[in-house]
Amino acid sequence: MSKLTPYHRSLPFSYALGVFPSLSLLDAKPQAARRLLLRSSEEGGEGMEALRARCQALHIRAEVADHALARISRKENCFAALLFDKYVDELCAACSHVVLHHPSDMGNLGTIFRSCLGFGLRDIALIPPAADYFDPKVIRASMGAVFSLRVRVYDTMDAYRGAFPGHAPYPFMLDGSVPLEAAAESPQTPFSLIFGSEASGLPATFASLGTPVRIPHGEAIDSLNLAVAVSLGAYAFTRQRNSAVQ
Amino acid sequence: MSKLTPYHRSLPFSYALGVFPSLSLLDAKPQAARRLLLRSSEEGGEGMEALRARCQALHIRAEVADHALARISRKENCFAALLFDKYVDELCAACSHVVLHHPSDMGNLGTIFRSCLGFGLRDIALIPPAADYFDPKVIRASMGAVFSLRVRVYDTMDAYRGAFPGHAPYPFMLDGSVPLEAAAESPQTPFSLIFGSEASGLPATFASLGTPVRIPHGEAIDSLNLAVAVSLGAYAFTRQRNSAVQ
Repeated sequence: MSKLTPYHRSLPFSYALGVFPSLSLLDAKPQAARRLLLRSSEEGGEGMEALRARCQALHIRAEVADHALARISRKENCFAALLFDKYVDELCAACSHVVLHHPSDMGNLGTIFRSCLGFGLRDIALIPPAADYFDPKVIRASMGAVFSLRVRVYDTMDAYRGAFPGHAPYPFMLDGSVPLEAAAESPQTPFSLIFGSEASGLPATFASLGTPVRIPHGEAIDSLNLAVAVSLGAYAFTRQRNSAVQ
Repeated sequence: MSKLTPYHRSLPFSYALGVFPSLSLLDAKPQAARRLLLRSSEEGGEGMEALRARCQALHIRAEVADHALARISRKENCFAALLFDKYVDELCAACSHVVLHHPSDMGNLGTIFRSCLGFGLRDIALIPPAADYFDPKVIRASMGAVFSLRVRVYDTMDAYRGAFPGHAPYPFMLDGSVPLEAAAESPQTPFSLIFGSEASGLPATFASLGTPVRIPHGEAIDSLNLAVAVSLGAYAFTRQRNSAVQ
């Protein structure tokens, strides 16, 4: 067995660290899972038992790898990790999308994934430079949600728009002309909710792509946290659909 | 001058790290500011000029402290810090509140502060064990919003309720009986929006405090991120008020 190195973006594989993200991977993308890494101690509880059993049923090799786990996780309390091959998703053409233009923070990206999955927006386009969505930090912040989404990187906004010309664009901008509630009342579908970077939002030119949306807030803050803004947008644009099914 | 140590919860002072949080402190709590620490290099731009000028006008001592800044911030790109004395706030009795029961993550706490200030909920009660809201990491995640809020720690939920018996409690729970939209349509005021910890939410007994609220989301996730949940609650409960003024 080759020596397992800490994750790096250039590697063709990554790690789901911890029992919960590993189980999420097995639920959603079992074909990508390669090796289960375990601690020699018997800790970990019920989730660990479930994880071992699922890997056995799927013929995924389990191995004790204390040193590798410590090196990979840089945390003492990681009892298991699942090594998986990176994969490429196709976005669903009939579904609405969330588009993130230059998202840079891995914690935000994971939190956004968790919210989008919760509100039923399973298709995410990333326009680089963007945080690496296969990074274990993103996977962990997403609580494994990333595996249940379809995520795809497009070189430019034009490339994304070219692939989905029928999607109604809703760029979220601090000076957007339409308040969130009005925009979300009866949106055109399928839609693309588009968000800019933590530091500088979307370029002003994006306003002309479609309906520029503003999340109303007081002047005491300059802007909302990006993960909060995306979550509010996803919530508002899916509210009627989610109310209907629950 | 005594040697400045990295922040620790037991200290009677803390640091606003960076130009933006420092300016926020001077805006909201100038009387707490004690010393401005600067790098010997001239970098920092316009914000730095404003910060120097404001400190001078307020007779706050500015000093070059490269080593102290490096030690305090543990980051190379911090060009300024404002040392301030910790202070105690009183919550506004006529205003609605956000109550956080056992919040543990400093990034979440800062993000929550930023959202609450944005949606005009300026009063925050914390029930310990809770992350330290004076920690520079919280201040930074809040983008300085913490200084414009009134934050107070209550030993127990009972102590908080005893101080504000007229506030209508809305505990947010995964199995809350009232969906967010219905609860937020015409809330009793002043209200207390109550949220539990990242790991385990609120104890089941909190349901009987008032109107238990559920944020509807699909079953693909167990829960939303805490900062996202608080932001959605704050947004929904203040939406009519915020729409009216903007």
